[in-house]
Amino acid sequence: MRIDIKATAKELLKMDNIYILCHRNPDGDTLGSGFGLHYALKALGKRSKVLCSDGLPQKFSYMYDEFSDFKAENIVSVDIASEQLFGDLDYKVDLAIDHHSTNSLFADKVCLYPDAAATCEIIWEIVTEMGVTVDEKIATCLYTGVATDTGCFKFSNVTPATHYIAAKLIEYGADFKKVNKEIFETKTLSMISLEREVLNTLSFSFDNRIAMIYVTTEMLEKYGVPETELDAITGIPRQIEGVEMGLTLKQRDVNEFKVSARSSETIDASEFCKKFDGGGHARAAGCTITGNLDEVKEKLVKALEEFLC
Amino acid sequence: MRIDIKATAKELLKMDNIYILCHRNPDGDTLGSGFGLHYALKALGKRSKVLCSDGLPQKFSYMYDEFSDFKAENIVSVDIASEQLFGDLDYKVDLAIDHHSTNSLFADKVCLYPDAAATCEIIWEIVTEMGVTVDEKIATCLYTGVATDTGCFKFSNVTPATHYIAAKLIEYGADFKKVNKEIFETKTLSMISLEREVLNTLSFSFDNRIAMIYVTTEMLEKYGVPETELDAITGIPRQIEGVEMGLTLKQRDVNEFKVSARSSETIDASEFCKKFDGGGHARAAGCTITGNLDEVKEKLVKALEEFLC
Repeated sequence: MRIDIKATAKELLKMDNIYILCHRNPDGDTLGSGFGLHYALKALGKRSKVLCSDGLPQKFSYMYDEFSDFKAENIVSVDIASEQLFGDLDYKVDLAIDHHSTNSLFADKVCLYPDAAATCEIIWEIVTEMGVTVDEKIATCLYTGVATDTGCFKFSNVTPATHYIAAKLIEYGADFKKVNKEIFETKTLSMISLEREVLNTLSFSFDNRIAMIYVTTEMLEKYGVPETELDAITGIPRQIEGVEMGLTLKQRDVNEFKVSARSSETIDASEFCKKFDGGGHARAAGCTITGNLDEVKEKLVKALEEFLC
Repeated sequence: MRIDIKATAKELLKMDNIYILCHRNPDGDTLGSGFGLHYALKALGKRSKVLCSDGLPQKFSYMYDEFSDFKAENIVSVDIASEQLFGDLDYKVDLAIDHHSTNSLFADKVCLYPDAAATCEIIWEIVTEMGVTVDEKIATCLYTGVATDTGCFKFSNVTPATHYIAAKLIEYGADFKKVNKEIFETKTLSMISLEREVLNTLSFSFDNRIAMIYVTTEMLEKYGVPETELDAITGIPRQIEGVEMGLTLKQRDVNEFKVSARSSETIDASEFCKKFDGGGHARAAGCTITGNLDEVKEKLVKALEEFLC
């Protein structure tokens, strides 16, 4: 059942001993939503715990909290579009809070606003509706999600509401300077060296409409860069003038590549990724393809031929 | 004489046949302020013209207008901190609108708000105060200045007002998608190739507190990149983890380099650049140093020794 902000706030106010689930391969929005909601519930005297199938990235450690063990009475998921994104977690979800238009409505109750640029925008509305006094910690978590899911207010998913909420969060003490510096302004020397090597793999196809780069496990090992840090690289091919969709192939195993697709307005990246059972947003989507580098490239080219022509 | 927003609006309402001066080596904020104000005055039935000593960059062409010849009755400067930044222009300025704390108060009347992240924020307040109906064109110009001077809302100069104004500008139709894509998301293949070469010049000093890169005129010619497009490169060295100030040396002539300094909160880049008669903001400043590459590097190291130790 779809429910609105007001009803969601009411539901949460009735809950206690809550597990908050974030999606696997966690990003700033799922973690900002999870921890932002957690601190808000804590401020209301409720017990909650953030769970994620994969390890939490070091760069978001300023949001994290210590959790004691307790038995869950309620399960809430944040920024999770479908059960496949649970990873190893296995729970029946009471309430899903999300902004993905592709949400499969797997939960009992669903608070879904596809126009929100980030799930953190929805959490902001819910937290306000619950009457929580937003402190620096909550504001910093929610700012993180808003900033990361919009490429720091650059992407086309930004609305006036995005900026109004950012203004409010900064007023409430969000440490946006630290967040932006940490997420958007800091690169390790290893990352810069890796980027330089990745740029050498750049290739074009379909009259330069498609640009492709790849990162092998060998490259990651050479520079000691963890796969979780590759988000920045994903943006490179789409940036190139005239390119309509940029594809970044990240090797996960000898015979498996994760493909990140970033597109401009002429191509629906999510539609393309569905061809490989993937999904996401129209401008940013992903899928996993098995095979070695040449095989994966070949599969992509074949799919692109069907998709573009 | 310093005057506030209200008084500035009154002054402008009294004026007609206005030359609006932008600073040399024009950026998004001076041009956004200049053209934003021009279109606002036009909407009020006044005649104005934007002037700049240097050529206007192609990437901001969506803001430009055609001007007819007329004799100036009033001169207004926007985003110009001192008369040195006039370039070849030579006028007595009636009204200066600016956000640089280093403004030399060269004008008859000065509307100066150093807390504004961009001069375009101040122009927004003035335009609103003048009762102008903000249209898409004005909104897009002002958004351009706000976005470029804050690195798209990333820099530490952002305040809640910055986001409130951005929200309003988007509501009034600012084409933020086009602006962001054009300014922050698009790179030519030549630029990407140049970046890769520039990364090879990266060097560190003072326990990695200082990182330096350089771009020679030879490199620019090799890839056909105009010097006006080098802003993106300027941000690279400061981004590296642990670096407190990043210096980018851009060759302008056989024996002249423009140095762009970008710093974190521990170093005042503007103070450093004063050593070479330059200036700017605490986090982003610049100066010009004569000499060949080795000489300029040596001068910088000597100045850094005095400055850091």
